[in-house]
Amino acid sequence: MSGIWKHNIGLSIFGESHGESVGITISGLKAGLLIDEAFIQSELDRRKPGQSDLTTPRKEADKFEIISGQFEGYTTGAPLTMIIRNTNKKSSDYNHLKNRLRPGHADFTAKEKYKGFTDYRGSGHFSGRITAGLVFAGAIAKSILKEQDIKIGAQIASIHQVEDDNLPSVINENHLDALSKSFPVLNMEKETMMRKAILDAKEDKNSVGGKIRCFALNVPVGLGNPFFESVESILSGLIFSVPATKALEFGAGVRFASMYGSESNDDIYFDEGIKTRTNNNGGINGGISNGMPIDFTVTIKPTPSIGKTQESVNLLTNESVDLSVEGRHDPCIVPRVLPVIESVLAITILDLMN
Amino acid sequence: MSGIWKHNIGLSIFGESHGESVGITISGLKAGLLIDEAFIQSELDRRKPGQSDLTTPRKEADKFEIISGQFEGYTTGAPLTMIIRNTNKKSSDYNHLKNRLRPGHADFTAKEKYKGFTDYRGSGHFSGRITAGLVFAGAIAKSILKEQDIKIGAQIASIHQVEDDNLPSVINENHLDALSKSFPVLNMEKETMMRKAILDAKEDKNSVGGKIRCFALNVPVGLGNPFFESVESILSGLIFSVPATKALEFGAGVRFASMYGSESNDDIYFDEGIKTRTNNNGGINGGISNGMPIDFTVTIKPTPSIGKTQESVNLLTNESVDLSVEGRHDPCIVPRVLPVIESVLAITILDLMN
Amino acid sequence: MSGIWKHNIGLSIFGESHGESVGITISGLKAGLLIDEAFIQSELDRRKPGQSDLTTPRKEADKFEIISGQFEGYTTGAPLTMIIRNTNKKSSDYNHLKNRLRPGHADFTAKEKYKGFTDYRGSGHFSGRITAGLVFAGAIAKSILKEQDIKIGAQIASIHQVEDDNLPSVINENHLDALSKSFPVLNMEKETMMRKAILDAKEDKNSVGGKIRCFALNVPVGLGNPFFESVESILSGLIFSVPATKALEFGAGVRFASMYGSESNDDIYFDEGIKTRTNNNGGINGGISNGMPIDFTVTIKPTPSIGKTQESVNLLTNESVDLSVEGRHDPCIVPRVLPVIESVLAITILDLMN
Amino acid sequence: MSGIWKHNIGLSIFGESHGESVGITISGLKAGLLIDEAFIQSELDRRKPGQSDLTTPRKEADKFEIISGQFEGYTTGAPLTMIIRNTNKKSSDYNHLKNRLRPGHADFTAKEKYKGFTDYRGSGHFSGRITAGLVFAGAIAKSILKEQDIKIGAQIASIHQVEDDNLPSVINENHLDALSKSFPVLNMEKETMMRKAILDAKEDKNSVGGKIRCFALNVPVGLGNPFFESVESILSGLIFSVPATKALEFGAGVRFASMYGSESNDDIYFDEGIKTRTNNNGGINGGISNGMPIDFTVTIKPTPSIGKTQESVNLLTNESVDLSVEGRHDPCIVPRVLPVIESVLAITILDLMN
Repeated sequence: MSGIWKHNIGLSIFGESHGESVGITISGLKAGLLIDEAFIQSELDRRKPGQSDLTTPRKEADKFEIISGQFEGYTTGAPLTMIIRNTNKKSSDYNHLKNRLRPGHADFTAKEKYKGFTDYRGSGHFSGRITAGLVFAGAIAKSILKEQDIKIGAQIASIHQVEDDNLPSVINENHLDALSKSFPVLNMEKETMMRKAILDAKEDKNSVGGKIRCFALNVPVGLGNPFFESVESILSGLIFSVPATKALEFGAGVRFASMYGSESNDDIYFDEGIKTRTNNNGGINGGISNGMPIDFTVTIKPTPSIGKTQESVNLLTNESVDLSVEGRHDPCIVPRVLPVIESVLAITILDLMN
Repeated sequence: MSGIWKHNIGLSIFGESHGESVGITISGLKAGLLIDEAFIQSELDRRKPGQSDLTTPRKEADKFEIISGQFEGYTTGAPLTMIIRNTNKKSSDYNHLKNRLRPGHADFTAKEKYKGFTDYRGSGHFSGRITAGLVFAGAIAKSILKEQDIKIGAQIASIHQVEDDNLPSVINENHLDALSKSFPVLNMEKETMMRKAILDAKEDKNSVGGKIRCFALNVPVGLGNPFFESVESILSGLIFSVPATKALEFGAGVRFASMYGSESNDDIYFDEGIKTRTNNNGGINGGISNGMPIDFTVTIKPTPSIGKTQESVNLLTNESVDLSVEGRHDPCIVPRVLPVIESVLAITILDLMN
Repeated sequence: MSGIWKHNIGLSIFGESHGESVGITISGLKAGLLIDEAFIQSELDRRKPGQSDLTTPRKEADKFEIISGQFEGYTTGAPLTMIIRNTNKKSSDYNHLKNRLRPGHADFTAKEKYKGFTDYRGSGHFSGRITAGLVFAGAIAKSILKEQDIKIGAQIASIHQVEDDNLPSVINENHLDALSKSFPVLNMEKETMMRKAILDAKEDKNSVGGKIRCFALNVPVGLGNPFFESVESILSGLIFSVPATKALEFGAGVRFASMYGSESNDDIYFDEGIKTRTNNNGGINGGISNGMPIDFTVTIKPTPSIGKTQESVNLLTNESVDLSVEGRHDPCIVPRVLPVIESVLAITILDLMN
Repeated sequence: MSGIWKHNIGLSIFGESHGESVGITISGLKAGLLIDEAFIQSELDRRKPGQSDLTTPRKEADKFEIISGQFEGYTTGAPLTMIIRNTNKKSSDYNHLKNRLRPGHADFTAKEKYKGFTDYRGSGHFSGRITAGLVFAGAIAKSILKEQDIKIGAQIASIHQVEDDNLPSVINENHLDALSKSFPVLNMEKETMMRKAILDAKEDKNSVGGKIRCFALNVPVGLGNPFFESVESILSGLIFSVPATKALEFGAGVRFASMYGSESNDDIYFDEGIKTRTNNNGGINGGISNGMPIDFTVTIKPTPSIGKTQESVNLLTNESVDLSVEGRHDPCIVPRVLPVIESVLAITILDLMN
């Protein structure tokens, strides 16, 4: 497995859900950035488990420790390494799964590829818990971007069949402000319905998916390149690194398929710079940022761990088994994935500005 | 701009729409592959312009010439370089665009990023014409994959508002066979409607988009890794390198958002190997191929070049102008992008097997 | 700064001499390797300080802790992360150096590049102490190579003006055995003279350099590629990552310059495989291993930290100052660099076999 | 084989000695550089064969053709591709070598690795002729560096046993000027002796090696990073990509081994910036350029193709054979490699400034 991503900056993630720790090393950061530990912790807290009845009851403080790359509170330019020690491990929950294959999970592929040596407890290195490192990197990236007034936001666009009110084609700072809360939806009635959908699924030992719309404001013109280093290419590689992401749409996304060119093209005007009336292209033309908001939507699949009985196979005998996944799970992972998606966007923009 | 992609194999693309040539160098190929020039040409012909009234009238023979990396008809293991000389250049068509910004195009971003030095004729290096190199590489990859019985296919899933019949969740060789034709749709009535939608748009100086569903059969278990080298991450980086792609869905894609986990999880059974009843996950779990078909859908936006009048800006004066794009354009690029998408899938699988 | 190296396997190093810790993450290792902690520690002990009167008196246990990537004693295929906590920090030794520039050190370049934010204590991230991570990775690599009978050895070829007896052009297992000791020289008289040269320099508040000849036996034919991925290119990039290395010679090295082709060419014969009478080319032709021992020599410069007075500049005033570097230093770093050089060779071979 | 090098800029080389062509694609160049074709050709001419009685009699015009990435005489920012068609092919010279293994050549490793599919004519892709692409890239890089007053030079430091006068530790523009000639040595008597050594070897059907000292003046402080991206690491990877290079020394190089720290450290003084009295470290401390000249020496082995009889093996029967290599060879490749080494330095500096 390769936990290394190397472009202008570098990321090296490591860890297991129920191992010693999870963490990340970030390479290529500038020296002299004040490390805002409170902000970083607040970002990690958005992702951490056990925050409400919507999430897994597993409690983890997710307290980070920086073990290299800082000196007297500032980045030094050297690799910045952070670790989080795992505390609340109930590995025994997973013993009965050692030889079973959970539908929708990486159990089968991991066992095949790694010859049975993977740490199966809580999905080991395949766990979404590894994304804590990305959130740490995202917090660092957001701090650097903020110095240039680049701001990142996200909306829970839908949970199961409940859709929040549509953001307009061109997102602005008012929308960012309206979404600056722990459960970022515009319409409070929809929020209530979404929460109910999650709790109903939980009650039913089931799970639900949803969509996250994420954006960056005040992005400079000129990031990215045509073809292999398009903003979409770099960003998509990181987005699909986040477990449970199954679709990615830029701007109008799948709606482009049924549009006319005369509808989908973004008309151009001048107002203290070149702007577009709509932002169907999600702020990117020819792979390069055009100064409009970077805007994309990610589909998150329902958590595959469910208590409901499913058909599977006993790995030792190849015989059919009825499987229900016990343990502590999220009935819906969307709210906790949201800060990861924001982080990945912040990292991408920082990387392309380097 | 970086035209280089380097993973296990390497791709280096170059060229301009109305420059001397387009081409590609492929690195990391094994020695001893018989180069099937007829097959390669047939693949290039699927993408080349001027084939029917559905496409741009620009005529290009797209005859390729291999200038390094082959000896006595076989690959040598050295970099394989192919060039196609441009022949049918009507650059004068583009003179009037030198200082205008076409909505939906990279004109603005290119001019900003490259300080006015880009070759603006036919979008220069931003042209979809550069993807001919990817089709060449795809043909080579398909030949190698075929030796291991791995097969690639694709469906025009929709054009504008016309959708072809749905392929089932688990695609098989019968579907591949049914789609082995120049306009690969299952339902002939739908094909007629699609062709009409394209010609109507052309008549109206407009353009339409659509969707391509693409798949690979007989993919071995174990390709890819969790996180940064997931099959989805590697593939998406290449997919979004293809101009006009704006959304990418794996398996059930955006439909995951409104599903229950009990629906979206693919039940597991044993039949001469581990299989799943459905293939909502598109053949990938935890970033690793699971042996079911790799299955994804790409949304292609309507060609931005349209004769209809649009709002734009005169680059020299910043004043509003009415712009209509003359020249030779495709009213719908979906059929010509389809072999590029297939190629990108073949390249990705070959790369991950290396 | 980029602490990431990514080829077939990946390395991510981090840490500072007097910070919290030093460590490494290794990506791309196969699953199922038994982690031999005793062997790893013995390798780290070869590099650690404070072992004898030849080295710095700084005492560090250099006890490593694996915090991810292992499960029940085996590698899992996930990123393998190791940290060593720094214990014996006497940072006060370095306070007086904050605004001085030590000749031969990175003080000036670090201060210029990182705007004064580097951790200056013990050279911070520029310290040779960071190579502990490489020795850890080297121990893992050696364990894997050993399964295929590939063996790594090294000779202290010279210290200051004392040269050990020459190894022959074609090194074999007898030489490897003869050099399997903590101060690997062939001739015991020369060893005595080398030790004396080091202690004399120490007494004189000075330092000395030397040469290390390193080799691998039983290397398979076919590793590497011509040009950018030649064995020499990959290996040299890692060798020159090791602080204090200033020259690298393959096989006959600088002696090639004064040879005739008829002398330098290695005559070819057959004896259970293609072999060469001499190994002037160091086991590599056209960038590719030829089955003869990989054989190269590295020159290590004298430790730049010396007590002797040198000319430098006060960074605040630009005025000349007399500088003598107090603190705990190695009068000769050659014996401690030797296991790092071996490690880098093991990592390179493992990487090229992946 | 991988002909791709990708760091901040990208290089993709291709071609064979007696195939259709050789060439290169350069990615990541800025837009708007005036392409000085006369200068590029003059650089290629320095490397091309058939210039005097010192080199192979093979005549190649080495006329380059730019087939992408330029528009109206300037770089566009798109990949810049150049090809040179091979003209003077006497492939029949090589037929008798098809099943023989030339000592010192890549014949054996190539045949093993590429299963007999390599183009064996004139060493095919293993030929030094492929470096024409690097010289083209070097000419582009030199043009860009010149805008910032960064200048590259080189000395033939020795041919066989004849050494030119030593350049001082700190090289300056006077030395650069003195070496600006086709056979760059300081001492004309030594030049005469070197030429004689080459012609004597030629007469004797033998070959000789030598050393090249190469340097860059006015290099900014701060290029490179500690460890994997040190100036030495990046540069060495490219230097050892050049066929026939077998040793690389920075600054005092192998002489460091026998020096005291008090001799090898470069004393620091201030004179309109931080400078050093000597430049034993070759302009690099801690992997980062320090503003002094980048200064290194490369050892080039004698051309392995010699007419003298050598011991080899018949590949089909494994029986010993006497082999003498007929055809057109250079009795000494040093003068023709020199512009390649300069090019590689220019490329490295440009890359690290990007």
